[in-house]
Amino acid sequence: MSELSGLTCPAPVTSGDRVLLAHGEGGRLTRRLIRELLLPAFANDYLRPLADGALLPAAGGRLVMTTDGSVVSPLFFPGGDIGKLAVHGAINDLASCGADPLYLSLAFILEEGLPIETLRRVVVSIAAASRACGIPVVTGDTKVVPHGMADGLYLTTTAIGSQRAGIDWSARRVRPGDRVIVTGTLGEHGLAVLAAREGFELVGEGLVSDSAPLHELAKCLDACGEAVHFVRDPTRGGVAAVLHELSEAAGVSIVVDEPALPVTSAVHGACELLGLDVLHVANEGKLVVVVDPDAAEAALTRLRRHPLGRAAAAVGRITSASNPGVLIRGGLGALRMLDEPNGAPLPRIC
Amino acid sequence: MSELSGLTCPAPVTSGDRVLLAHGEGGRLTRRLIRELLLPAFANDYLRPLADGALLPAAGGRLVMTTDGSVVSPLFFPGGDIGKLAVHGAINDLASCGADPLYLSLAFILEEGLPIETLRRVVVSIAAASRACGIPVVTGDTKVVPHGMADGLYLTTTAIGSQRAGIDWSARRVRPGDRVIVTGTLGEHGLAVLAAREGFELVGEGLVSDSAPLHELAKCLDACGEAVHFVRDPTRGGVAAVLHELSEAAGVSIVVDEPALPVTSAVHGACELLGLDVLHVANEGKLVVVVDPDAAEAALTRLRRHPLGRAAAAVGRITSASNPGVLIRGGLGALRMLDEPNGAPLPRIC
Repeated sequence: MSELSGLTCPAPVTSGDRVLLAHGEGGRLTRRLIRELLLPAFANDYLRPLADGALLPAAGGRLVMTTDGSVVSPLFFPGGDIGKLAVHGAINDLASCGADPLYLSLAFILEEGLPIETLRRVVVSIAAASRACGIPVVTGDTKVVPHGMADGLYLTTTAIGSQRAGIDWSARRVRPGDRVIVTGTLGEHGLAVLAAREGFELVGEGLVSDSAPLHELAKCLDACGEAVHFVRDPTRGGVAAVLHELSEAAGVSIVVDEPALPVTSAVHGACELLGLDVLHVANEGKLVVVVDPDAAEAALTRLRRHPLGRAAAAVGRITSASNPGVLIRGGLGALRMLDEPNGAPLPRIC
Repeated sequence: MSELSGLTCPAPVTSGDRVLLAHGEGGRLTRRLIRELLLPAFANDYLRPLADGALLPAAGGRLVMTTDGSVVSPLFFPGGDIGKLAVHGAINDLASCGADPLYLSLAFILEEGLPIETLRRVVVSIAAASRACGIPVVTGDTKVVPHGMADGLYLTTTAIGSQRAGIDWSARRVRPGDRVIVTGTLGEHGLAVLAAREGFELVGEGLVSDSAPLHELAKCLDACGEAVHFVRDPTRGGVAAVLHELSEAAGVSIVVDEPALPVTSAVHGACELLGLDVLHVANEGKLVVVVDPDAAEAALTRLRRHPLGRAAAAVGRITSASNPGVLIRGGLGALRMLDEPNGAPLPRIC
């Protein structure tokens, strides 16, 4: 980190310390932005030749490719920023596929007038996250749109990973009786971003995004072998969106045990005040795992040994293969339907 | 194409036939957009499981990864549209690395209020271009930002390719004496977009983007083996940007023979009227190729046999390894410096 935090933006990168349209035109200013800001931050042998594409060694095993656009507002929020979020989002999609991270690409869409210092902070954050996860930024692209045609900056990350041998995590392997596990407390990311954006100071107290890379946590499940049937990270739309997709894809019914859901008091309070169901709120550092019932305890034990899985909990089960739907059993035992997220309660949280 | 042009957008995709914030929230509307519009258009076995990432077979040989953001305005222009352009841009970056196309990812950033019909037209165009190039869309992402925070839609494509054995195209192999070839007439894309955007009807007559996939054209060079030293597609910043980058990277001087530049009369006239140098204008269907002088004729012959290389021409040479810079020799024989693109004469042309 020390060489990154010391990154400076020499004057020639811009006039006036702001992003200009010319930074996106492929000429001298684009080259300076790349050579003086981006290349030093992401320094690695794949990126350095600055060819049209990155030349990468042959990869063994099945590849996984995943892409994510990041449009979060605000760009910086308690617990993270758009850069870290974009890297973790890519890593976590790989993690959900049982893949180890290999390479990352970045495409910036910058708004004319964005302070170069803001861009520098995001770049430093991306570089730190990519190094921490061992996924080098091997290629990239920068475009600039006129003032008023974006909101600061948007960022698209695409990751390539290598799937570990023996992984077969898929909705079609989910069966009645399977247990549903979440790897930690829910709802922190969505509420932290919402509170930061709307200035809910009272509600926002104690709300910090859970943005974290989950590739190592997911690997803890390998010891459970074929007993692991399905893994997904519950981001936009929250756990509810994952369970509805799973219910439809696998043709099963799922019952969630509401009192078993791990939720911090800050999130609980914010959800009560804002009238939100925590199951609809985005997470950026959690997995939903569906396992064979006989392996549920072993999976929980392994997950809880990892720092990012300490609050892992079994929160539901697959109940029927004949009647798709997602139900929630409240504290008093009554069953109700869990709505699929439909409207837009929390726009631009990732 | 027939099944694509027949694609319809059933009512449930949206209310009011416009993109809503909820289309980006990961819930029911996101799922409908994917299942009813995107999945049928891009139908392939990699995409169909709709997992967090696409599972891809192991690829032999060195991989090439490249990414491009597309922010062109207007979205549709003579000779192309943002979708086709984004696919060709990715393909051409692979082509410049001597790589055959394997897989493509797409990330949309949509502006709230965008007509679904506009999105459908872009999706159909992407699907047609990806099929024509044999590069399936294997994974994707869709985000929606509020009205006024984008300009219709932005699109990021990331491509993976497989580099052909024996390819070593790199600035460090460029030597004094080498010939500089362009594979066809210059400046069409940038001027066609500019004319479409600004409504230059008179100037715009006959201006059509050259957007085209160049992977097969680049392959024609394989027969010249090691005599091919460097290949790049001159997009943003035009041929001038490529030559300046090459001059700096290889530490060589380059002289361009102005009368040898292939330019259509429409482009010539528009450049005269607008005061633009065609060497600064973007192309989306051309390559700059640097070859050993002994192989220049053979390379030209092979390129001209391909429909996209009929107007290929030798337009310059590498002159010195001691005095980096790019010079242009005019019709009367006088040498002048060729400016590196610096400002933003043509914003948002890709």
